[in-house]
Amino acid sequence: MYIPTFDDVLAAHERIKPHIRRTPVRESHYLNELTGAQLFFKCENFQEPGAFKVRGAANAVFGLDDDQAAKGVATHSSGNHASCLSYAAMLRGIPCNVVMPRTAPQAKKDTVRRYGGNITECEPSTTSREDTFAKVQAATGGDFVHPYNDPRVIAGQGTCSKELVEQVDGLDMVVAPIGGGGMISGTCLTLSTFAPETRVIAAEPETADDAYRSFKAGHIIADDAPKSVADGLLVPLKDLTWHFVSNHVSEIYTASEQDIVDAMNLIWKHLRVVAEPSSSVPLATILKNPDAFRGKRVGVIITGGNVDLDKLPWNQ
Amino acid sequence: MYIPTFDDVLAAHERIKPHIRRTPVRESHYLNELTGAQLFFKCENFQEPGAFKVRGAANAVFGLDDDQAAKGVATHSSGNHASCLSYAAMLRGIPCNVVMPRTAPQAKKDTVRRYGGNITECEPSTTSREDTFAKVQAATGGDFVHPYNDPRVIAGQGTCSKELVEQVDGLDMVVAPIGGGGMISGTCLTLSTFAPETRVIAAEPETADDAYRSFKAGHIIADDAPKSVADGLLVPLKDLTWHFVSNHVSEIYTASEQDIVDAMNLIWKHLRVVAEPSSSVPLATILKNPDAFRGKRVGVIITGGNVDLDKLPWNQ
Repeated sequence: MYIPTFDDVLAAHERIKPHIRRTPVRESHYLNELTGAQLFFKCENFQEPGAFKVRGAANAVFGLDDDQAAKGVATHSSGNHASCLSYAAMLRGIPCNVVMPRTAPQAKKDTVRRYGGNITECEPSTTSREDTFAKVQAATGGDFVHPYNDPRVIAGQGTCSKELVEQVDGLDMVVAPIGGGGMISGTCLTLSTFAPETRVIAAEPETADDAYRSFKAGHIIADDAPKSVADGLLVPLKDLTWHFVSNHVSEIYTASEQDIVDAMNLIWKHLRVVAEPSSSVPLATILKNPDAFRGKRVGVIITGGNVDLDKLPWNQ
Repeated sequence: MYIPTFDDVLAAHERIKPHIRRTPVRESHYLNELTGAQLFFKCENFQEPGAFKVRGAANAVFGLDDDQAAKGVATHSSGNHASCLSYAAMLRGIPCNVVMPRTAPQAKKDTVRRYGGNITECEPSTTSREDTFAKVQAATGGDFVHPYNDPRVIAGQGTCSKELVEQVDGLDMVVAPIGGGGMISGTCLTLSTFAPETRVIAAEPETADDAYRSFKAGHIIADDAPKSVADGLLVPLKDLTWHFVSNHVSEIYTASEQDIVDAMNLIWKHLRVVAEPSSSVPLATILKNPDAFRGKRVGVIITGGNVDLDKLPWNQ
């Protein structure tokens, strides 16, 4: 298992800079008053494909040598990683094959196809996904880019907090959502070298709190099929992300489904940005644990903004 | 009638800089492909009170001498001007009296009160509004800050396109919505001196197209009570804004209600910002008149982002 270093983050940033946005940081006096903290929201929802995952995906895609690039990349994902990898592959002009459950939302499939990704559908089970993916990879020779358990992906995600530290002085902590742990691992990787005084806090849905329980137990606990409105945070930690979580995360806080929806509404209303439920978990945990954040300078990563506008959770 | 100059815009910008945000400019590859133009969206919805109107309001409030400031400011408005004037007055610590129709949405009244504004309700008619306002002003001595027909307000709004020209090189045109004409007038005022090669285009709802008809007729035509989903654009031009519109606007385009709602959905989906219907009229007209914009570098002002999230127009 190769563990990426901060030099890998620096190399990733040089590699992907032409292909990603240096996203702005937003503030809201209202949310500062509400929480008693100074919050700095890093808007990764403003990446062209709408999520931070374009960083790791672009680092993997643009790091391939020409021979491998000709065979393209492949992954399995029903979320932002699929569209971001397709987007990065489109920018380089190479094939991208994605295995998605046939039950994935049509909007997600449409986005992958808009970016030129080839979708192979599988049944919504781990067995079917793994079998189908093995066949697709054997047929295409595409380089497997895991959504998070890949040093290239983690180094790419680490460029987000590098920018945040360059944009905002003296952060006491950075809070990011945790699912498989790719963003949190990149954040740990960067901050432990680049801003070691800044603590890393992870935020997770109560109903999918496997990372929280892993963190407390000291070993990976993987749930079978957790459910949450924060649909980007349902996957388990893996060995590489567990390395960073277990070594560098200061705390994991959780929030209820209602907390998450309420925080999402506050973000839309007062920051006036379109954030996914998954991206709203950090603010939900800040509101729930005010003593931990009051008076602090807190970076908050708005990880993505791909939402079905016809099915907003406060209208359900 | 004092007609503000570009020097007034420069003075306004120095005056209000500590109190407003230099809002970011957003791009979307997708919307560029869709329109064939290069679109640069200036996000005034990211001002703390959610609209460009904080610029003109802050210029008026912070330009008062101490004696007048002690008596505060007053206005009549049921929209963003009321909350932005209250916000600016709160920052200076002076009273703000607002006359609002009793039928105004509760959310708008709540926002004014959150910023410390005193609301006096009137009946939803011009007579009642003018009578009530005269009484409030006589009682308080507050300085009347008109929502748009005021040189201080127009000079303040002009700081928006000054920033935009500083942020984006070589704009062929800037498109902004037109209601009473405050933002368009400020844009004309700034660009005619600061970037005279950049044309000013106004965008208006078809169902409230009094500015379009005025522009074609060569004199102000005021409608009695037009209706549109773009609820910030229902007021008529006045002498000062007509001066700028008639002398400096290159073209006014209109869009249907459905065009506006569709454009709003595209902005939310692909720019991932929360924009009002009024702010979506420019993109609607760009999509409707592709030949006028194709191949051009086009500034688009997202004027505000105060929306009732429980009543989105595509869910009606």
